Amino acid sequence: MTRDDALALDAADPLAGFRDAFDLPAGVTYLDGNSLGPPPRAVHARLARTMSREWGQGLVRSWNTADWISAPARVGGKIARLIGAKPSEVVVADSTTVNLFKLAAGALSLRPGRGTILSETGNFPTDLYALQGLAALTPERARLHTVAAEDLPGAIDGDTAVVVLTHVHYKTARAWDMAALTAAAHARGALILWDLSHSTGALAVDLNGAGADLAVGCGYKYLNGGPGAPAFLFVAERHQAAIASPLTGWMGHAQPFAFEDGFRPAADIRAQTTGTPPILALAALEAGVDLQLQADPAQVEAKGLALADIFVGEVMARCGDPALTLASVRDARRGLHVAFAHPQGYALVQALMSQGVVGDFRAPDIARFGFSPLFLSFAQVWDAAAALAEILATRGWDRPEFQARAAVT
Amino acid sequence: MTRDDALALDAADPLAGFRDAFDLPAGVTYLDGNSLGPPPRAVHARLARTMSREWGQGLVRSWNTADWISAPARVGGKIARLIGAKPSEVVVADSTTVNLFKLAAGALSLRPGRGTILSETGNFPTDLYALQGLAALTPERARLHTVAAEDLPGAIDGDTAVVVLTHVHYKTARAWDMAALTAAAHARGALILWDLSHSTGALAVDLNGAGADLAVGCGYKYLNGGPGAPAFLFVAERHQAAIASPLTGWMGHAQPFAFEDGFRPAADIRAQTTGTPPILALAALEAGVDLQLQADPAQVEAKGLALADIFVGEVMARCGDPALTLASVRDARRGLHVAFAHPQGYALVQALMSQGVVGDFRAPDIARFGFSPLFLSFAQVWDAAAALAEILATRGWDRPEFQARAAVT
Repeated sequence: MTRDDALALDAADPLAGFRDAFDLPAGVTYLDGNSLGPPPRAVHARLARTMSREWGQGLVRSWNTADWISAPARVGGKIARLIGAKPSEVVVADSTTVNLFKLAAGALSLRPGRGTILSETGNFPTDLYALQGLAALTPERARLHTVAAEDLPGAIDGDTAVVVLTHVHYKTARAWDMAALTAAAHARGALILWDLSHSTGALAVDLNGAGADLAVGCGYKYLNGGPGAPAFLFVAERHQAAIASPLTGWMGHAQPFAFEDGFRPAADIRAQTTGTPPILALAALEAGVDLQLQADPAQVEAKGLALADIFVGEVMARCGDPALTLASVRDARRGLHVAFAHPQGYALVQALMSQGVVGDFRAPDIARFGFSPLFLSFAQVWDAAAALAEILATRGWDRPEFQARAAVT
Repeated sequence: MTRDDALALDAADPLAGFRDAFDLPAGVTYLDGNSLGPPPRAVHARLARTMSREWGQGLVRSWNTADWISAPARVGGKIARLIGAKPSEVVVADSTTVNLFKLAAGALSLRPGRGTILSETGNFPTDLYALQGLAALTPERARLHTVAAEDLPGAIDGDTAVVVLTHVHYKTARAWDMAALTAAAHARGALILWDLSHSTGALAVDLNGAGADLAVGCGYKYLNGGPGAPAFLFVAERHQAAIASPLTGWMGHAQPFAFEDGFRPAADIRAQTTGTPPILALAALEAGVDLQLQADPAQVEAKGLALADIFVGEVMARCGDPALTLASVRDARRGLHVAFAHPQGYALVQALMSQGVVGDFRAPDIARFGFSPLFLSFAQVWDAAAALAEILATRGWDRPEFQARAAVT
């Protein structure tokens, strides 16, 4: 593939116009939108309005006049359109970690008599930690069982209350067949809880098409909602009346402002919310979601997969370094990031960054690159692949300043 | 007391200069900082910098270069100075509700063999709901027992694992004697968990002086951290090694970026954090905390108590409406808000608001007013009391537009 081929793809790209909607520094090719999405340009005005007009002028009255109180359900309802859910099935709340805890506990409440929470070895750590925390808190009721991905479908049994899987793996980018795994869980009477952190805003997810029961997801990756943006959760309509949340707070009460001593859950998805919603963070997230809603999910997925494929293809075609191996899946159902393993993975990422190409490093040896379809061009990705291949060919990573570790890698 | 007396108090007020540090609308007397503090002027630039320079220019690198990763501990360490704690004992995380759940469960882990969580009837609802949720999730281990405030010290017994109290009651403003209650809990082998939502930034709290074990608190009231600001939690140093969090997430891991399958808690207060920290919301909160740190806590408490006392005194002295009763304590240990009960409480608050005096209503009949010491003047409070007395004297609340209920009251 030539650079002219890449330019031709850009000329024909129906999503090319979205790049101007982002506030990205000049000279940077940002291949880490899968870790932290960049700011949509609209977020500055959106947050300035929330701070000045709503918080500053409206003060406490803005819970009504600016409808702050509905923000979790409103933004959740918008995210629903990106993941094949009904607006009434999604709400923004807490963090992905806290939501996993809530919904895994909720799944146990829906499957009395079953005690196994089944997940995948090497799942994203916070998912495993949240489930370990739940099991440690309720040892009489729950145990966490993890197996390798290839053994997972066969490990679902009559004691499995819920299968908890990340739709797109954070390292390998392998995507589970959501419909097939959901069906496998249901065939054995278990529920399924999907973590959509690496798929929301990237792949054309269809939770209800797959018959999914529960899901959580992240606001700060492909939704571009800001660092540490609030997360969302999904509870299929058929489960909302029966599921119990272990984390009951006043925002989940049927009548929060009745100030009753006893908790009575809201009859809808709000029952899964806890404390006062984070309005500034919700405003930023809404700007990201609003932008994402303007794009066709099928086009987003197709472009992202094509960008990733071009990057891998160009790097592998040019690279003569046998120490480099592809650590993400290629010819399989997958998400929009790719991972290379290399003994100098950390320095490799630093060397690329010195040339304005931002990727990330995942211990012990993974250089990871994400291909957000809304702000990347084919030519940028072609150039980034050429830069990576050149660094590998010339041992360009072999400089002291690229070896010095930062606190967060 | 005359208006000239109020003006004289303003002239001598060492905190008078703080008013200019807030962005408050002209013509508004804001007596609801106890529900939602107003924006410090500095928050606009602080958040614009976080959005443009840190998020927009730095992108994912800002976890290191802007030290986002330390924000929960850094801001927590600042809050520590306001509540008599060591910086290493406080961290910003999640919501008050979620933190209550975590620390109540943590208290159970520190007191094996004891199962009772003891709290107060009529405590702020989300506190009770969080504890009810924990008890429902762990019925083999925990039960919630609530008693009236006057019966509380006597209800602590050999099965009490933890006493959970709100330092300043959200309606009555009654403040518990923190040292005495903590000692009463300890005398029976129980721990104490204080909710400081209505005292942080208002009263000169001294957790370590009182020997407290655990605490949580709110960022959006007297800390002026923004609507739904993240909350904080305190774990006394002596408990940090042994306390278990039920909500384990990757930010609480000893090495979050080692991406291990098994949770190993951080050795310090970070073990109580869960998901990725909300950076935009933390930036806003830090602006509020930074401002608060410039004021002398003893002066803050003294002025707030004086403002509240003047308001109650003036209203009661002028008001001939026998239907009005004081629902908050007066000649007792107390916080900085006052509450009046009146059958027309809702319309009363609306009528006052039409004159630019913002208070709030708490069902069924409470008109509540908070006296934030940093941005209110004595003359403003004197005028507000005169306005309330006038409305009561003339049945000024008796207009249809003051009776129409909004969604959030």
